[in-house]
Amino acid sequence: MQLTDFKTVAAKYKVIFFDAFGVLKNSEGLLPGIEHTFDWLKENGKDFYVLTNDASRSPQELAESYYKQNFYAIPPERIISSGMLAREYLDLKVSSGTVAYLGTEKSAHYLETTGLKTLPISQVDLKDVADINALVLLDDEGFDWNTDLTKTVNLLRKRNIPVIVANTDSTYPVSKTRIAIAIGAVARMIETIVGKQFIQFGKPDAQLFMFAYERLENAPQISKSDVLMVGDTLRTDILGGNKFGLDTVLVLTGNTQPQDAEVLIRSTGIIPTYVCKSVVIR
Amino acid sequence: MQLTDFKTVAAKYKVIFFDAFGVLKNSEGLLPGIEHTFDWLKENGKDFYVLTNDASRSPQELAESYYKQNFYAIPPERIISSGMLAREYLDLKVSSGTVAYLGTEKSAHYLETTGLKTLPISQVDLKDVADINALVLLDDEGFDWNTDLTKTVNLLRKRNIPVIVANTDSTYPVSKTRIAIAIGAVARMIETIVGKQFIQFGKPDAQLFMFAYERLENAPQISKSDVLMVGDTLRTDILGGNKFGLDTVLVLTGNTQPQDAEVLIRSTGIIPTYVCKSVVIR
Amino acid sequence: MQLTDFKTVAAKYKVIFFDAFGVLKNSEGLLPGIEHTFDWLKENGKDFYVLTNDASRSPQELAESYYKQNFYAIPPERIISSGMLAREYLDLKVSSGTVAYLGTEKSAHYLETTGLKTLPISQVDLKDVADINALVLLDDEGFDWNTDLTKTVNLLRKRNIPVIVANTDSTYPVSKTRIAIAIGAVARMIETIVGKQFIQFGKPDAQLFMFAYERLENAPQISKSDVLMVGDTLRTDILGGNKFGLDTVLVLTGNTQPQDAEVLIRSTGIIPTYVCKSVVIR
Amino acid sequence: MQLTDFKTVAAKYKVIFFDAFGVLKNSEGLLPGIEHTFDWLKENGKDFYVLTNDASRSPQELAESYYKQNFYAIPPERIISSGMLAREYLDLKVSSGTVAYLGTEKSAHYLETTGLKTLPISQVDLKDVADINALVLLDDEGFDWNTDLTKTVNLLRKRNIPVIVANTDSTYPVSKTRIAIAIGAVARMIETIVGKQFIQFGKPDAQLFMFAYERLENAPQISKSDVLMVGDTLRTDILGGNKFGLDTVLVLTGNTQPQDAEVLIRSTGIIPTYVCKSVVIR
Repeated sequence: MQLTDFKTVAAKYKVIFFDAFGVLKNSEGLLPGIEHTFDWLKENGKDFYVLTNDASRSPQELAESYYKQNFYAIPPERIISSGMLAREYLDLKVSSGTVAYLGTEKSAHYLETTGLKTLPISQVDLKDVADINALVLLDDEGFDWNTDLTKTVNLLRKRNIPVIVANTDSTYPVSKTRIAIAIGAVARMIETIVGKQFIQFGKPDAQLFMFAYERLENAPQISKSDVLMVGDTLRTDILGGNKFGLDTVLVLTGNTQPQDAEVLIRSTGIIPTYVCKSVVIR
Repeated sequence: MQLTDFKTVAAKYKVIFFDAFGVLKNSEGLLPGIEHTFDWLKENGKDFYVLTNDASRSPQELAESYYKQNFYAIPPERIISSGMLAREYLDLKVSSGTVAYLGTEKSAHYLETTGLKTLPISQVDLKDVADINALVLLDDEGFDWNTDLTKTVNLLRKRNIPVIVANTDSTYPVSKTRIAIAIGAVARMIETIVGKQFIQFGKPDAQLFMFAYERLENAPQISKSDVLMVGDTLRTDILGGNKFGLDTVLVLTGNTQPQDAEVLIRSTGIIPTYVCKSVVIR
Repeated sequence: MQLTDFKTVAAKYKVIFFDAFGVLKNSEGLLPGIEHTFDWLKENGKDFYVLTNDASRSPQELAESYYKQNFYAIPPERIISSGMLAREYLDLKVSSGTVAYLGTEKSAHYLETTGLKTLPISQVDLKDVADINALVLLDDEGFDWNTDLTKTVNLLRKRNIPVIVANTDSTYPVSKTRIAIAIGAVARMIETIVGKQFIQFGKPDAQLFMFAYERLENAPQISKSDVLMVGDTLRTDILGGNKFGLDTVLVLTGNTQPQDAEVLIRSTGIIPTYVCKSVVIR
Repeated sequence: MQLTDFKTVAAKYKVIFFDAFGVLKNSEGLLPGIEHTFDWLKENGKDFYVLTNDASRSPQELAESYYKQNFYAIPPERIISSGMLAREYLDLKVSSGTVAYLGTEKSAHYLETTGLKTLPISQVDLKDVADINALVLLDDEGFDWNTDLTKTVNLLRKRNIPVIVANTDSTYPVSKTRIAIAIGAVARMIETIVGKQFIQFGKPDAQLFMFAYERLENAPQISKSDVLMVGDTLRTDILGGNKFGLDTVLVLTGNTQPQDAEVLIRSTGIIPTYVCKSVVIR
């Protein structure tokens, strides 16, 4: 497996799509030196977007989390999250009533602006569910798994409503050595139990890439071959980028350990165009 | 779909294997009149066993739960539970150290008699796991899902140990209209997350049927064609009974609603030898 | 379940996306009277596209198959096929070498125009595969399953190359009572055997919808809420249309039998906006 | 990973269960020196059985294939095959009519002795299927995949009958570098297409182990802790042996390459009691 320098690769493209976690930041915060990469992008006229399977916060809040670390290169309008797809779905497809949700109040707040009422599963009364027209799985936090997951199953037995999963990840890292179960894994458990087909948003699905691609400032002059997708996870970032027709970079600062990369590429058949150690340009 | 009278069917066999939940009892307690069925079995010299995917209590405790309802026909030695298979596994395959578990203290107590130390996941210190030689998933109660399931995932990333699932069911009924998520569904979520293969005990697996079959009093004279399996669930009781070579009865007092039986038999291809309304003989 | 008249529904939208098989035609040819529907669309200034999981022929050839039946309303530029996505992938992502394929020569011919050499699996020499840079699964016809599927498995053990599946369907109808196995089902078997992740194009994936949506003549004025997706299959047409944010119509002239529709909608949780008997307007 | 000498391990047990392919023989024939192992077993009073996921031939024919190579240590009564389980199922559960099959005539011949008529799928007339009461998937050879698999799907849409899969393997080696698709993989494809639950026989399922365990000559004195299971495949031999309560040996002469063993044990969580290079005792 040949490692390529990220700057050399990035220089060939007009637009870079970045995954956030494992690429720009990790469980300890921003990658040291990441600001140099964004300085370089600016100096060289490269456009960029951050594509994230994160529905726990709005793009505004995600950007603010960077600002708090004194990193100001990524404004909200550069962030494309799977939560935005969930919100678009509700806008287009659910015109009235209440949207039940699993997640924090903050994550639901972002959906509320669509005009629909939101209600945490914990406050749903199973005897009075006629008004609930959709269920959204947003985040693994903000509810009691023991009682609220069982309540979710019973709600779905009473109401045949669309279920939106706004983060398809199974786990996320919480420290150098520990991971936590993400809402995507919980969603698949519930989906199997109730035997229904949920609507899943997030990489590797094409819709997130499309959302970013449509926003490209000078779209007419930009083709898919001008765009590079950078990620740390083969099954989401690289598979999704490849399928959308983009060239792809696997970086080794997140989910994929340097010593495992070659074996994983061979065993999954998910082949990045390039492998780079990190996006940090020094 | 032709309904047959249970007494007429049972008269043709020497031994009856019963599932417990949905067949002898439901969320409201014992089926009214169930004692007549066991009187009839006794009068007619029919042997019987109760085969249950229940690892939350010992056979002794399961029998006592019947006694408390003034029903004395089912002694502990007639009860074959998936917990017994978990216990046999630990007896044969794990000779020392600590067995971590998800479930109630009571469920673990039954395993403890094997000589191994048991420890609830909540008390596991992830920094000191060298002594943990197995993990057993016993029951959906007795632990906090939010913290203990994530702890379980991290334990399995640190220790490559056998994981035993002592109840393969996905859900169980808690009232006429509500169900709860069983440990089997949780087990499959964890299995997918860690990418490992767990050891699952319980119907439809042949091992539970074998355990009962080996205990038949007059084994030499009894062949599989003398045994009838009775259950309320196609995918566990009927599939498992059929595969083990037994004739099978689907009853309509539990998981399978009368109006759905025909469609389910056709759509799953799991075909009971007979369908009876109930095992209650009046 | 309430049936709605198709004309009444269609009148509310500016653009209609049609699935082909089971909606416009079936195993016996075009639906009698289908021309009236397209006359009505023209008279009322409705735009339309045909979205099909068919990679066995080019859009040109698909259009010609309508012409041969004296139906001239659907020109090639109105047809969006999963084969077009496969072709775009090869254009963007495979720049040189040979593309091996399973399918007819005709289906491969459409890919050839990308400048790559194509080679049927039957002619691949497993001792000389260094030049093969991609594999495309196009059609269930045109090869010997016994020998060529095993050859495919061995090719994928020797070469870690992208595998593109250009039709995700499992089966297709060949007469009123018979179905045939489609390449999608074969692809999933091979994928499981080799343990790799293939790149699958076709409904319900968003990419096919996007291809059509991008081609809308007056795109600036058309939003997703102006587009109606019409299909006969819940898991492809309706799930995909819903997820893309479109209103959807399930028709009962194809895969979904009138007597099964209500049960299927409830059991899958895939909910069309409307159910119509047929798209034929009389 | 520590390698242990097979003789040292075997000396601790009274009975050895061997997988055949990859343990006693490979695609080039018997392992050189295998006769020494069976001489040693005889000299030391060790009982043995061969447990094989092979339904293509009867135990008699399997034994003869050893005799032809001048190896006479394994008589038919020492061979337990998944075909025997399929035959027992038909004996116990299908009392009349015709059994349709996929496989060679030879493989079906073994089932015929049950008194049922057998008919290859190629000779089934889909217009006259009322007499067909079961379908058995025996072998990947002996039929045309293109036409007969589609015919199988259509048969299962017309008749709701039990489907028995007598070999659960996905692939088998045909040379040092090539593999072929086994009937188990084909069975899973058909099962998914028709949405029904097939009855699968073969390791890791407990039933094959039980069949051998019941035949142990001096059963009363033999407990599970006296039996050692030896195999080359983690997911069948080792998982099944462990689950049945046996100690297990992984050998490196078949499916599991020496350089992959440690990674595979860690990634699957299927942990053999011992790892030996080969069963050949020199």
